[in-house]
Amino acid sequence: MAQKTALIVYAHQSPASFNAAARDVAVQALTKQGYKVLVSDLYAMNFKASATAEDIKGDLKNPEHFIYNNEMMVAWQDGRLSDDIAEEQHKLEQAELVIFQFPLYWFSIPAIMKGWIDRVLTQGFAFTLQKMYDNGIFKAKKAILSFTTGGTESMFKPDGVHGDINVPLWPLQLLWCSFTLFLDYCVE
Amino acid sequence: MAQKTALIVYAHQSPASFNAAARDVAVQALTKQGYKVLVSDLYAMNFKASATAEDIKGDLKNPEHFIYNNEMMVAWQDGRLSDDIAEEQHKLEQAELVIFQFPLYWFSIPAIMKGWIDRVLTQGFAFTLQKMYDNGIFKAKKAILSFTTGGTESMFKPDGVHGDINVPLWPLQLLWCSFTLFLDYCVE
Repeated sequence: MAQKTALIVYAHQSPASFNAAARDVAVQALTKQGYKVLVSDLYAMNFKASATAEDIKGDLKNPEHFIYNNEMMVAWQDGRLSDDIAEEQHKLEQAELVIFQFPLYWFSIPAIMKGWIDRVLTQGFAFTLQKMYDNGIFKAKKAILSFTTGGTESMFKPDGVHGDINVPLWPLQLLWCSFTLFLDYCVE
Repeated sequence: MAQKTALIVYAHQSPASFNAAARDVAVQALTKQGYKVLVSDLYAMNFKASATAEDIKGDLKNPEHFIYNNEMMVAWQDGRLSDDIAEEQHKLEQAELVIFQFPLYWFSIPAIMKGWIDRVLTQGFAFTLQKMYDNGIFKAKKAILSFTTGGTESMFKPDGVHGDINVPLWPLQLLWCSFTLFLDYCVE
């Protein structure tokens, strides 16, 4: 029987952090369950966050009017994505389970993790106009958003100062998760 | 009478884009109205997106357990933020109006703009635990989210494939906007 694979996309700067401890516990628990565990430690990798023409090898299709999504879609078809993106896509393809481990920054993922989303989930690879949501390319994969907050639990309750935490999480879980990867299983 | 100032935080890679045209029209219209207009062209500036210890000059308070928000708060108090952050904070302080001009990436701002939010809106400078929302430090400033989408209008209607666009915008307009900067005026 083929070994199951999990990918942890991890975004904290410090090995002494609670996020690092959560990552380590996940690695241990999944390994014990027989998973091969891949970790993308974004800060340690100095992962490039910004979506630029450097993400494409060779000539651009339309250098006079650069449209990132369109150029990336063609580059993916031609095998001309930058090595760092191709490597993350290869990890994602293998993984049946993806865990996003991060501290909440401004009610969302940190910029370095948004960069992973923006750059790795290329049209064609992760979705097409026909293949999204309940027809998504990776809909069989499961995902967990695992994160810490600077605020207390009461601050994120419906009557708390920030309001219900499910509101800012909605775009993360319902949209980028269910859109391509993770229908039905996104948040634990 | 002192001249009014506007800041456009702009995130598109191409000078030929619709986003660039929207920026240029805004610059012209505001200049005509007597504004001094500042533009932060994030890709052209090669703006650093990721929140790292390099954002702080001098010694860290707790290098063994780096917590970005805490280190940044102290560095801001001591005038030890990196020059690029200090410069953006200076622009923001001057501006009565802030326009965020961007293409929607994964139902949110591009990573490079999330980096501007994560790095520039330092605790102490942009908010404190006492000064947020209707008591926010910059609550008199106005802001506009001006953006393009890859999808059509019908895709973002309540019965469209992505659902009501106000849902993913909620964290942007209600949280990071009203939390610190822009109560009451955030979205046009």
